[in-house]
Amino acid sequence: MVGLSGAVIRRQQFLIRCLGDYSGSNNICNSASIKMQSLLSVGSPSMEVDAVSILKSITPSLEASKHKGQAGKIAVVGGCREYTGAPYFSAISALKIGADLSHVFCTKEAAPVIKGYSPELIVHPILEESYSVRDEDKKSILAKVIEEVDKWMERFDCLVIGPGLGRDPFLLVEKNAIRKFVCMDCVSNIMKHARQSNVPMVIDGDGLFLVTNSLDLISGYPLAVLTPNVNEYKRLMQKVLQCEVNDRDGTQQLLSLAKGIGGATILRKGVSDFISNGETVHAVSSFGSPRRCGGQGDILSGSVAVFVSWAHQLAGEPSMSATVMGCIAGSVLLRKAASQAFERNRRSMLTTDIIQHLGTSLEELCPVLVSQ
Amino acid sequence: MVGLSGAVIRRQQFLIRCLGDYSGSNNICNSASIKMQSLLSVGSPSMEVDAVSILKSITPSLEASKHKGQAGKIAVVGGCREYTGAPYFSAISALKIGADLSHVFCTKEAAPVIKGYSPELIVHPILEESYSVRDEDKKSILAKVIEEVDKWMERFDCLVIGPGLGRDPFLLVEKNAIRKFVCMDCVSNIMKHARQSNVPMVIDGDGLFLVTNSLDLISGYPLAVLTPNVNEYKRLMQKVLQCEVNDRDGTQQLLSLAKGIGGATILRKGVSDFISNGETVHAVSSFGSPRRCGGQGDILSGSVAVFVSWAHQLAGEPSMSATVMGCIAGSVLLRKAASQAFERNRRSMLTTDIIQHLGTSLEELCPVLVSQ
Repeated sequence: MVGLSGAVIRRQQFLIRCLGDYSGSNNICNSASIKMQSLLSVGSPSMEVDAVSILKSITPSLEASKHKGQAGKIAVVGGCREYTGAPYFSAISALKIGADLSHVFCTKEAAPVIKGYSPELIVHPILEESYSVRDEDKKSILAKVIEEVDKWMERFDCLVIGPGLGRDPFLLVEKNAIRKFVCMDCVSNIMKHARQSNVPMVIDGDGLFLVTNSLDLISGYPLAVLTPNVNEYKRLMQKVLQCEVNDRDGTQQLLSLAKGIGGATILRKGVSDFISNGETVHAVSSFGSPRRCGGQGDILSGSVAVFVSWAHQLAGEPSMSATVMGCIAGSVLLRKAASQAFERNRRSMLTTDIIQHLGTSLEELCPVLVSQ
Repeated sequence: MVGLSGAVIRRQQFLIRCLGDYSGSNNICNSASIKMQSLLSVGSPSMEVDAVSILKSITPSLEASKHKGQAGKIAVVGGCREYTGAPYFSAISALKIGADLSHVFCTKEAAPVIKGYSPELIVHPILEESYSVRDEDKKSILAKVIEEVDKWMERFDCLVIGPGLGRDPFLLVEKNAIRKFVCMDCVSNIMKHARQSNVPMVIDGDGLFLVTNSLDLISGYPLAVLTPNVNEYKRLMQKVLQCEVNDRDGTQQLLSLAKGIGGATILRKGVSDFISNGETVHAVSSFGSPRRCGGQGDILSGSVAVFVSWAHQLAGEPSMSATVMGCIAGSVLLRKAASQAFERNRRSMLTTDIIQHLGTSLEELCPVLVSQ
């Protein structure tokens, strides 16, 4: 428990430093204010980072004396009537990389199915969907949902928000809240509580839809990671910088975007993954797989959550942001596993095949050294 | 059936002996009253037990003439809305080691999911959770639950209480019972009935939360095994001996604790497992796995249940308590299987991987000799 408390303290110190850096810098669409922009250009080899070394530096040793939970407790908030695979992929990936416990908070309809995929997950059927909630009950249901999640919040090292969440207005954000007597959104309230407890968050999928429409949820929170794909990135750019994506200025745009949301880290997925917290841009370009089957982003979000929580437990003062290091490690591991899975399965490669290769990939990149 | 009746008689004789030893010894926080304490020190090689020989001595031969049930009928009481993996891990482990039948008594919500994990289990959806029970119905529901479990009780060789039980007050113990008209807890009543029938019990997870708050459920019952992890052990120490864990006095504290609860056996999980019934302390230190993923404790509880039931069927007068022998065998088997699973899966090792290695591990430790 000493180690965990230390991690909490380090996260708080990290937050304080970041808040210092970003105070009063909410309006930084002005590209002149962006550090390092003159050093960087799209595709510059200088951006390519030694991702394997970073992964090695944050992956903890396995020690016989450690207790359950010390290698990470992750929670995924997602899973609804339509989507049950995405939260499963994210949560099981966290375990396969080495987290000790992986929870899922989903709707009642999704829970039995997600539980059925694997007995390893702890699945909480607490979210409600609009169609099953009467207007007059929303306030009390929201309070119950928050109470239930709050019981657990302090125990988690990282949340993943969004895999298979859907776009239900009650689950996400009540657009007509002003005209009703209270803002009744569930997930945005969970995010607010996570932020109050300084719990890092990885936001993907429908979680990105939510934060793009409610930027204040993550603005100025350096423990947040956004993992947009091409379309989600485009919407973020339009919303935050009011401009279209222009790959000639890709690096500067990414820096501006990360700065524009106050130092949350952005992992822009693509042929190369680009990672920025508004201070630096790093690229991970190792070859993954040319298959684009659905679900790979969920592996990434679960992986980044584990690596971010590990990076925050590092002793000393690392030279790079723990959140950025976690993104880099997650990116390179997914690419390695996807490459192995594709080699074996070719066109029939699916997300479950990649998950099967997470362990062997991690072992190749960072062999276990057991300390007794 | 003759063999089983013999086992019941032996259990009763064992109980009578134990009750003789412990009568009037409830207040033994005074360490001066502890036998053998002068012989033992933490980590003393003399505590390390020949666990493999003990496992071999209690594992029954397989004989073509035996009937279904003679190799053990185990029941797990656990499984609720959130937790379905834990009771599955415990119940399937019992079967994988060699029990003939494995039952699960869980809540209605958990039952279909647990059934779905494996068609090998017999799953009884009989427990009710508070949120689905009106106050005025609790008494009649409790009576029905107990009636349902009692139908089966005499047939079981060992119960496992607690995997994935959750901490629902109606399932565990009704805190406001005094202000209501009757104590309406389900599981504590099941435990009382099991005790009346002299059925051994292994108590883990949320079952430990229950007995730590209601020590009389197991106090003075030598057929009970408690399997606390580091935090659960700490809470037990605080409750029973009103003191903090001090590893310098680890052995004496463990003896005092076991004595303090009247001779129930404690299996303290850790880097080494320490086992005591208040008379002796034994250690099992063979290397397992440095992974601490959730669920390993459930394998242990299911394994100990089988070995305890086998040990109670031994003919003659064994030199060691049957309950202690069952704990030692369960501990060494889990360590062996975890070591094999870790060797193969490294950081991605999960609880299901260990379960897959229970059979090969047991075969290596104690090869089957089929008697016809």
